[in-house]
Amino acid sequence: MADIDEELRAVLIGTAHKLADAARCAILPLFRVVDLQTDNKAAGAFDPVTAADRNAEAAMREVLARLRPDDAILGEEYGVKRGTTGLVWVLDPVDGTRGFISGTPTWGVLIAVGDANGPVLGVIDQPYIGERFIGGLGEASVDGPQGKIGLRTRTPRDLGEATLFTTFPEVGTTAEGAAFRRLSERCKLTRYGMDCYAYALVAAGQIDLVVEAGLQSYDIQAPIAVIEAAGGVVTDWQGGRVHDGGQVLAAANAEIHAAAMAILNA
Amino acid sequence: MADIDEELRAVLIGTAHKLADAARCAILPLFRVVDLQTDNKAAGAFDPVTAADRNAEAAMREVLARLRPDDAILGEEYGVKRGTTGLVWVLDPVDGTRGFISGTPTWGVLIAVGDANGPVLGVIDQPYIGERFIGGLGEASVDGPQGKIGLRTRTPRDLGEATLFTTFPEVGTTAEGAAFRRLSERCKLTRYGMDCYAYALVAAGQIDLVVEAGLQSYDIQAPIAVIEAAGGVVTDWQGGRVHDGGQVLAAANAEIHAAAMAILNA
Repeated sequence: MADIDEELRAVLIGTAHKLADAARCAILPLFRVVDLQTDNKAAGAFDPVTAADRNAEAAMREVLARLRPDDAILGEEYGVKRGTTGLVWVLDPVDGTRGFISGTPTWGVLIAVGDANGPVLGVIDQPYIGERFIGGLGEASVDGPQGKIGLRTRTPRDLGEATLFTTFPEVGTTAEGAAFRRLSERCKLTRYGMDCYAYALVAAGQIDLVVEAGLQSYDIQAPIAVIEAAGGVVTDWQGGRVHDGGQVLAAANAEIHAAAMAILNA
Repeated sequence: MADIDEELRAVLIGTAHKLADAARCAILPLFRVVDLQTDNKAAGAFDPVTAADRNAEAAMREVLARLRPDDAILGEEYGVKRGTTGLVWVLDPVDGTRGFISGTPTWGVLIAVGDANGPVLGVIDQPYIGERFIGGLGEASVDGPQGKIGLRTRTPRDLGEATLFTTFPEVGTTAEGAAFRRLSERCKLTRYGMDCYAYALVAAGQIDLVVEAGLQSYDIQAPIAVIEAAGGVVTDWQGGRVHDGGQVLAAANAEIHAAAMAILNA
């Protein structure tokens, strides 16, 4: 991990907040606009992108150009900018664009900063609610409608008492979907449709597990930092590091992480 | 329909707001409380209820005892209270209790008032976001983070351009699930997990269709009033009245309602 002293720590946290503020200002004027122009990034599928995604990432890149010009950037919409400091900002301006274009309040802005070993600080921001989850570098809090509250993941419990989230019922491939359903059948409650907000709920001690597949690094780096700072565990389905994306298992604690991983690989 | 003059209209709208305010105050202190006691109302299934449901309905019944003592009440938690005015208040203190106990921000307080023919006014309130959708008696608006905005449903479009919501992928019985999947395959985008919030999104012009099954009258009366006031159509899957619950088809307009109904019954 990059050597981060107290001065740099304060700069990185301050920069993360400025990035989230800039994204809010870029996105909110476009949220729920009637028939917002939606372009499709995928051939043979529906991978929507709007001006909200593009404007927010551009706004965040402008902030970084001023405050951290020598750091690298990896963003969903505008790709890689190389840097010289060993630090990289990983940006997903609107995680959950399908939810965004449907008017739901559970998409989010994802911001992480880290090095080759993964994220050291993450932000999950929900601009419409005005709710910001931050974790890493000594931070673990949510600031929103209930004020600023510390984040702590749930205590261990049996799978039979656990709540599991994913975004799409299909989850991924046929095999990935089958593994998810094996786990779902063992849990008390399974819910869908929350995109990055589900990871925030793990960090906030509200749910036990999120299982997804096919994620990109910019989808998961901020959730990793926020959940780990709150006491949780985020790996791939085999227990390995997942900051480059893929199959994600996010858990409130090591015990339920182990129990869920055993079922996913049964 | 009951004869509602201008004075009574103002009283009913004012009372609906006071009910929603009372429910907010009762529920918010319990939202995201760690390990909130959850009781199960169902034998052989999981139908959770918490003090938030009970306290909010009790608070709303106190408001009605003061302001509208002669109206009837039908509430999810405390059942029927008979009245003499021909008007009945239909209350679901927390629609989406599974979402509530998971910390999501898409549960809601549902309030409707109407007569034997169905609701004339409805409120869908999301206390955590601070967002209130109201429709009927000349009202059709949402008041929330973006200020007060008029509600208008989406213009007609092909199913292939439409967005469809339901809460659970199973929807209901095996046959109901199969009918839903036939429709889903014809739509551009299908999303899950929003409970009553999906109906608010129809009214707000964000999505085209919500299809659910097995609803109770208190789940659907407020959405009916809000969506109809915004220009939409809410019926059962055969096009009949649905204010007593059952299979619900909520649509942004008559054209997409007809198209969806044809697929559901194919």
